Amino acid sequence: MPAAKAGFELDPRLDRDSEQLMWLGLCELRIMNDRRWPWLMLVPQRPTALEIHDLTPLDQTMLTFETNTVSQALKSATGCTKINIGALGNVVPQLHVHIVARNEGDPNWPGPVWGFEQRIPYAREDLHRFAASIRSALSP
Amino acid sequence: MPAAKAGFELDPRLDRDSEQLMWLGLCELRIMNDRRWPWLMLVPQRPTALEIHDLTPLDQTMLTFETNTVSQALKSATGCTKINIGALGNVVPQLHVHIVARNEGDPNWPGPVWGFEQRIPYAREDLHRFAASIRSALSP
Repeated sequence: MPAAKAGFELDPRLDRDSEQLMWLGLCELRIMNDRRWPWLMLVPQRPTALEIHDLTPLDQTMLTFETNTVSQALKSATGCTKINIGALGNVVPQLHVHIVARNEGDPNWPGPVWGFEQRIPYAREDLHRFAASIRSALSP
Repeated sequence: MPAAKAGFELDPRLDRDSEQLMWLGLCELRIMNDRRWPWLMLVPQRPTALEIHDLTPLDQTMLTFETNTVSQALKSATGCTKINIGALGNVVPQLHVHIVARNEGDPNWPGPVWGFEQRIPYAREDLHRFAASIRSALSP
């Protein structure tokens, strides 16, 4: 597994709201600790990038590959109706990409997850179960 | 300029809410007719794709390239604080990618634009002026 990149520090708010799952080639893959939706996050280990278009073309392609691999794993692990992908960064400027499993009738459906009410943390064993299902979907 | 792809029909709601700007290699580039935010939309001309990960690897790379080219043009044309990129599709299933220019203090900042109150159409000449600024930023 690739190691953490030198010089890269995770934003404290991203660190607080989510748990480390694994390192991919470019990104740190994290689980948002919010049981309202199955929600993953990719953080490119590039300290200076604020917009996706700031990345080099190779990193852009890597990010696309990692986003779509994770998106497919999340869909197969959850059987969700729709994947929502978003790169906003209005609150936390460090570049990060959200990948969220959505279902009809979930909180705020069909509206977005961002900024909707308060995060509800998982019970520890449920977080571990979700993490295991994603690891397994990523290692076919 | 590439022509429209055979077999591709734009979803009627996307058609109603946005205006055609140009065709890129993969996507139709459209302007959301909502003067609350400078807001562009890319619609891959692939009738059967619902998720980005449904696209072929080549199309995924094309979409990344077109998204980042448009994102950079929107940032340079508007001088915005932050670009927001989103692929949701909870309301309109046809695959489409939003690229939105955000600024501190804009409607719903720092929350997302999707699902926030009602669309406010441009005055015709303002829409044309915005379209011209994007065309110009895309043709350096």
